[in-house]
Amino acid sequence: MNNGVKEFHLVAEPVERELADGMIAHLWGYNGQSTGPTIEAVEGDRVRIYVTNKLPEGTTVHWHGLILPSGMDGVSGLSHPSIPPGKTFIYEFDLVKSGTFMYHPHGDEMAQMAMGMMGMFVVHPKDPTFMPVDRDFLIMLNAFDIDPGTYVPRIMTMTDFNLWTWNSRIFPDIDPLVVNKGDKVRVRVGNLTMTNHPIHMHGYDFKVTCTDGGWVPSEAQWPEVSIDIPVGGMRAYEFVADHLGDWAIHCHKSHHTMNAMGHDVPTFIGVNKKPLTQKIRQFQPEYMPMGMSGMGDMAKMEMPLPDNTIPMMTGWGPYGPIEMGGMFSVVKVRDGIDADDYSDPGWYENPPGEMAYEWTGELPEFASNNSPKTILTPKPNSKG
Amino acid sequence: MNNGVKEFHLVAEPVERELADGMIAHLWGYNGQSTGPTIEAVEGDRVRIYVTNKLPEGTTVHWHGLILPSGMDGVSGLSHPSIPPGKTFIYEFDLVKSGTFMYHPHGDEMAQMAMGMMGMFVVHPKDPTFMPVDRDFLIMLNAFDIDPGTYVPRIMTMTDFNLWTWNSRIFPDIDPLVVNKGDKVRVRVGNLTMTNHPIHMHGYDFKVTCTDGGWVPSEAQWPEVSIDIPVGGMRAYEFVADHLGDWAIHCHKSHHTMNAMGHDVPTFIGVNKKPLTQKIRQFQPEYMPMGMSGMGDMAKMEMPLPDNTIPMMTGWGPYGPIEMGGMFSVVKVRDGIDADDYSDPGWYENPPGEMAYEWTGELPEFASNNSPKTILTPKPNSKG
Amino acid sequence: MNNGVKEFHLVAEPVERELADGMIAHLWGYNGQSTGPTIEAVEGDRVRIYVTNKLPEGTTVHWHGLILPSGMDGVSGLSHPSIPPGKTFIYEFDLVKSGTFMYHPHGDEMAQMAMGMMGMFVVHPKDPTFMPVDRDFLIMLNAFDIDPGTYVPRIMTMTDFNLWTWNSRIFPDIDPLVVNKGDKVRVRVGNLTMTNHPIHMHGYDFKVTCTDGGWVPSEAQWPEVSIDIPVGGMRAYEFVADHLGDWAIHCHKSHHTMNAMGHDVPTFIGVNKKPLTQKIRQFQPEYMPMGMSGMGDMAKMEMPLPDNTIPMMTGWGPYGPIEMGGMFSVVKVRDGIDADDYSDPGWYENPPGEMAYEWTGELPEFASNNSPKTILTPKPNSKG
Repeated sequence: MNNGVKEFHLVAEPVERELADGMIAHLWGYNGQSTGPTIEAVEGDRVRIYVTNKLPEGTTVHWHGLILPSGMDGVSGLSHPSIPPGKTFIYEFDLVKSGTFMYHPHGDEMAQMAMGMMGMFVVHPKDPTFMPVDRDFLIMLNAFDIDPGTYVPRIMTMTDFNLWTWNSRIFPDIDPLVVNKGDKVRVRVGNLTMTNHPIHMHGYDFKVTCTDGGWVPSEAQWPEVSIDIPVGGMRAYEFVADHLGDWAIHCHKSHHTMNAMGHDVPTFIGVNKKPLTQKIRQFQPEYMPMGMSGMGDMAKMEMPLPDNTIPMMTGWGPYGPIEMGGMFSVVKVRDGIDADDYSDPGWYENPPGEMAYEWTGELPEFASNNSPKTILTPKPNSKG
Repeated sequence: MNNGVKEFHLVAEPVERELADGMIAHLWGYNGQSTGPTIEAVEGDRVRIYVTNKLPEGTTVHWHGLILPSGMDGVSGLSHPSIPPGKTFIYEFDLVKSGTFMYHPHGDEMAQMAMGMMGMFVVHPKDPTFMPVDRDFLIMLNAFDIDPGTYVPRIMTMTDFNLWTWNSRIFPDIDPLVVNKGDKVRVRVGNLTMTNHPIHMHGYDFKVTCTDGGWVPSEAQWPEVSIDIPVGGMRAYEFVADHLGDWAIHCHKSHHTMNAMGHDVPTFIGVNKKPLTQKIRQFQPEYMPMGMSGMGDMAKMEMPLPDNTIPMMTGWGPYGPIEMGGMFSVVKVRDGIDADDYSDPGWYENPPGEMAYEWTGELPEFASNNSPKTILTPKPNSKG
Repeated sequence: MNNGVKEFHLVAEPVERELADGMIAHLWGYNGQSTGPTIEAVEGDRVRIYVTNKLPEGTTVHWHGLILPSGMDGVSGLSHPSIPPGKTFIYEFDLVKSGTFMYHPHGDEMAQMAMGMMGMFVVHPKDPTFMPVDRDFLIMLNAFDIDPGTYVPRIMTMTDFNLWTWNSRIFPDIDPLVVNKGDKVRVRVGNLTMTNHPIHMHGYDFKVTCTDGGWVPSEAQWPEVSIDIPVGGMRAYEFVADHLGDWAIHCHKSHHTMNAMGHDVPTFIGVNKKPLTQKIRQFQPEYMPMGMSGMGDMAKMEMPLPDNTIPMMTGWGPYGPIEMGGMFSVVKVRDGIDADDYSDPGWYENPPGEMAYEWTGELPEFASNNSPKTILTPKPNSKG
């Protein structure tokens, strides 16, 4: 605080970011990190933000969603001059509304965002009784195109990214979201990639209560299980944690829960590679045939990989491989968590009778049609 | 029914699916079909679902959108162990809410869904007077990448699919949606592809009444003519069939109403291929020049195709070629349909004066500006 | 007007369109322009539209979103026969509801829309006191794939377009949206591309009041700063112009605010090209090394380009290069604009103290944590 003005300092600079254990990316970010630190303030605050540019080219900061003077809006050349390398600029404005906003460059925007320059800006309501929650999570969706074995994103990629990340991290190295039974929970999700991401959370239905434009009136809200986050948009959704368990939360685009090497691999389903394998092994003894039975074996095998990459699918749960990557984590809802210690409680133990189990007996007779009424499928699902 | 529990049996297995007459795909599905059978039950039911795995790798079933115990949620390794090949597992849970849900694997998910493993799960309201309809259609959006002349989808394709399907079928071999005038109609559309599909229906406007998260309150509904279905989402929309006719229903992404061979073809608009054609025909007499006047000629010509594929555009209506493919069908609204026989009534006959017609007379004078007020177009549409 | 029927004439024909100064595209359009002229009429009107086909192949016109007889719906072969080259057809119907609709071909649709055939159809409410505005803007989102140095779009491109346009124009040659302080403003945005476009406007939040399906009830509206326009959809949003300034308005997908040459360029961030440059210049003296410090230098340099293209990023504001292209313009809100002259008022002058400025003094101490409460980020933004 400085004379009633809340002061912050953002340093735009090259950073090293561990996307996951064993994989480092050379990015651009703020204050040593990508994504940048979350700026938090309160509705009604006046903020003064010092921005120092330690990048080799000019940059600006646009305060996405905030209502502020035109000259503080951060569009290079339009709002004000670009901040030259080595210089510090000051942005100063009042926070006239609460909500979840974002910050990112608005000059050479495509390149600088592809390098990881982005962060969240949370303005808490002045009235603490307005929309309070017990747990408040924040996910910035971003994406990179980094070839296995390399370190710098390809900044000109338009659609074919190979690393889909949350806060510049990938599963299995994204922390779980730990909540206590009965907690009121908010998850704020911003999207600064090139495509929509439908964020799907298991075990619950929930409603969007806030966008980067403001709070959504309760009568306008829809019940959802997958929130489609538009590019350049933010959606906060809320739920009461009534259902105990380990609940997957992920982007529902199946390639976005894969790490690199998840594209452009030939399909071998139905192909018998065994004779070929014998021949290849005469010359390369460690050769492994893959993919003849789907790709699930990728999650279990220990295969030599290039340096600085991680497998396509990974993660190990209490019952075996989870076979996921990228934009995936777990919401862990437990009973009796100490409000001062929300550290990872380990895996959920299913109560007796509440887990799918093997059946080795006879299969019962099934009625040919259990349907209470007929649903009409264009061209019924039979073969013809 | 078994002691008050409703029992079902899903067999995960390789299937052959006729995507259209003359094109067979080798997929993975359930109970001999892809998409799998629609499971129907009633709110309040307890269901027991036997899942037998006849695939060459492990699988699970995730019950998308349903509220159930964590251990029944079907995430491989996280909820319970993957079902090994040859084994049968039991899932058992209560249906605590009505709506439209989906089922699909949640382990090696990208590969197994790219192979066609998915189905719908409809839970009817316990109260039969809640949101009743006369006609109830169900469309699962899916997509495959199958090279012309081949049978197995490429499972690693991320965006460049070449077959955009409804219930694993393509136009012109998707059944029409036949309804009687005045029928209350619901269309439930689920999306398990890699991109949004805006489902556009002609002749009507309508509102989304239900998502995979629940029923949308009427005051929160928007009037629409294209429902943008997010990936991993379901939207049910409703309308009263007041307008007689043959109304197109399709995805509004124009490439999604094309079959394979609709990409990566060079553009020849404005090119005169006649001299070249004469030369080529000296060596290959059956050569046909195409595309000099657009691609519409593709819909009319009989061209030699590779085995096991169908033309890029196809379908023949009462007035000539429809020039469509993929995600396209027709809603047929007729007067006096027998409620016991909703079979295809043939093409709609336009009443006199209700069809566009050729004008061979003089063109009238047109006022230079009929506009009641000026609409402002950034950079007006004139050339400069 | 002809006997109480409002008459229009659309001529489908090849057109030349200046996408920006120095870049001409050979498209197909209507009445000499692409996008076609906006048709304006009033709710309750009966319209008669003559459509003359001067293209080398058949065409039709589909009236997207309008309620009309099945035979006037413009689906080739289904509603009526395709209009042959050289012929004129008549469409005639009543306008039963107000709103913002679109028109485009519905036969060889993919090719003809990829060539630029589309327009808007605005039906004003019969009651002039219903939803009146002072300024009413109209943006049709479209996209082309035209290689630098060529003139005709590649019509088979599915996702990898290189020119993202508004009304077939690109920044910096899209007019600004000029409004007076206090004006009630409506922006109607239609999307006939192959992907969603999140239209982001700075300086304001706003609400969608109308879709191509009808008017959205106020209690169902959401506050937004980025309106995600679905393909085959229209969204009109409204705001009161209370905030003076020059406010960017653009698609938030960063590649859509780039012109051609914005893809598939290698990344050289962190590479020192100086020694290489010396060697290359022995043979090609004008060689310029680029991209070692990001791509921002692209906006400033004068580089030899192929004929008939424009730079990747361009536009010059009052404070230097804006470094944008494609789907980008500026909303100019001014005080005291004459209601008869909304011509471009030039750049906004920031009042004293309302523009970001350089700081050359000492940096103050920053508190380690200004946060009023803890926001939880899955895997906190620190490196590990």
